[in-house]
Amino acid sequence: MPLVAPVTIQKISGESFVETPDLLAVEEPLEIRLGFGPANDRQQRAVSVTMRTPGHDEELAMGFLFTEGIIQQRTDIVSCRHCVQDSQKEGNVIRVELQPDVVVDWARLERNTFASSSCGLCGKATIEAVMALARDPIASNFSIEPSIVHALPERIRDTQRVFAYTGGLHAAALFDSEGKLLLIREDIGRHNALDKLIGAAFWQNWLPLNRYGVFLSGRIGVELVQKSWMGGIPFIGAIGAPSSLAVQMAHEAEITLAGFVRNERFNLYSRPNRVKGQG
Amino acid sequence: MPLVAPVTIQKISGESFVETPDLLAVEEPLEIRLGFGPANDRQQRAVSVTMRTPGHDEELAMGFLFTEGIIQQRTDIVSCRHCVQDSQKEGNVIRVELQPDVVVDWARLERNTFASSSCGLCGKATIEAVMALARDPIASNFSIEPSIVHALPERIRDTQRVFAYTGGLHAAALFDSEGKLLLIREDIGRHNALDKLIGAAFWQNWLPLNRYGVFLSGRIGVELVQKSWMGGIPFIGAIGAPSSLAVQMAHEAEITLAGFVRNERFNLYSRPNRVKGQG
Repeated sequence: MPLVAPVTIQKISGESFVETPDLLAVEEPLEIRLGFGPANDRQQRAVSVTMRTPGHDEELAMGFLFTEGIIQQRTDIVSCRHCVQDSQKEGNVIRVELQPDVVVDWARLERNTFASSSCGLCGKATIEAVMALARDPIASNFSIEPSIVHALPERIRDTQRVFAYTGGLHAAALFDSEGKLLLIREDIGRHNALDKLIGAAFWQNWLPLNRYGVFLSGRIGVELVQKSWMGGIPFIGAIGAPSSLAVQMAHEAEITLAGFVRNERFNLYSRPNRVKGQG
Repeated sequence: MPLVAPVTIQKISGESFVETPDLLAVEEPLEIRLGFGPANDRQQRAVSVTMRTPGHDEELAMGFLFTEGIIQQRTDIVSCRHCVQDSQKEGNVIRVELQPDVVVDWARLERNTFASSSCGLCGKATIEAVMALARDPIASNFSIEPSIVHALPERIRDTQRVFAYTGGLHAAALFDSEGKLLLIREDIGRHNALDKLIGAAFWQNWLPLNRYGVFLSGRIGVELVQKSWMGGIPFIGAIGAPSSLAVQMAHEAEITLAGFVRNERFNLYSRPNRVKGQG
């Protein structure tokens, strides 16, 4: 499935109209199902439906399952592939076969059945429940020069091809303390972009990511901090603003949170001492 | 609960650090419960948990229930208020008491139990399911001058106080064909801002909103088009880009979709003839 879809639009400038071709970011639903045996309906169960941009769906599924605490390691997975039973919907359902000894806490997942959060926090009514997934504060000696942080947005923009075309995608990028980009993933949903990134790292056995930072193209809600915490990432940079709860969780996780990274400026909301030269 | 939370941050400009006070947009979970009798645990059921900015919670709940197709009219509601049983969580659980004759399609709501979509589309695996909520195309003779569309972003920015402070909130604004703002709601989640707006209009018996347009501060995913469709709104303007599915649904709903509204320009993705002077 392509990442972009062609359309014809009317471009208005002042009072003038021009018909012109354009490209849109593709948005499609993805259903993630867990399986525990040969593929058949009795032994699988849907755990998530998310509106996502197609591509890297296996990584999205693994990243979601890992950051939700459902799987811990690569060997928990027997297989991860798109369902092809229904040719009409090929590509929008992914089935993750787990080892029989993986214990899924269905009760926790079910606690709140219906959810409309923009995140994997669905099914968790309170911050206490959010925190329940969390582990110890992140242990890391990651540190970074301000000049390297300043340079991240442009470096990511250069590699974020679809966004350049459509303006419609979020990016999540993994970088080291020298500012080298290791991995970038894009999606119409910011939590999906981060799930894809962490899912890719999970599959490559890179976790915990405590020698790296992550850079996000949008605003920072608590769910992005929670996912980063699960991934062991000690530094989050973002173009946008963090929420109150995001900052609160970053403090608890001992994650350095940098927001409004643009035009040679940024704000540090937590754990500033991972940025060199501080006070 | 306040909309903003004070923090102390480190502002970095080039290589220099300055400690300074700042304000964050507040993010807290809201659980929406439906009740069908005297308040007690046996006769209520959670239908949604969303990360939201506190304020206008009743409108958020009503807008969510209406745009999800659970309620149709004001008289479906007996009461809508925060639960206060647990003083620790006061303000983060809202209980909507429905008339006994309101039939809730639990099966539809339950179809996909776990969800991580950034929208009310949770629990709907496919675009067909999304479309299943939809009604007829919107009948409206709403039309608007390009100059009025151009002026919307600044007009909304002027009234969006919390965003100005924190940069962290989305806005949804209702306006008429002269560009007059009738209502504006803010939230850390863009779908919540629109739910609050539609919930307020619902409570004031303004629906269907077929003489108005809505302006959104961010990008346009399909769920925002779906909610607008439920509200009967014939025109959506936004600062950001729409997704492929948003445009597809706007075509079906016969909603005029204007994206990238900024700097005296915008793009029309569907039904351009509601903008005066076209072709």
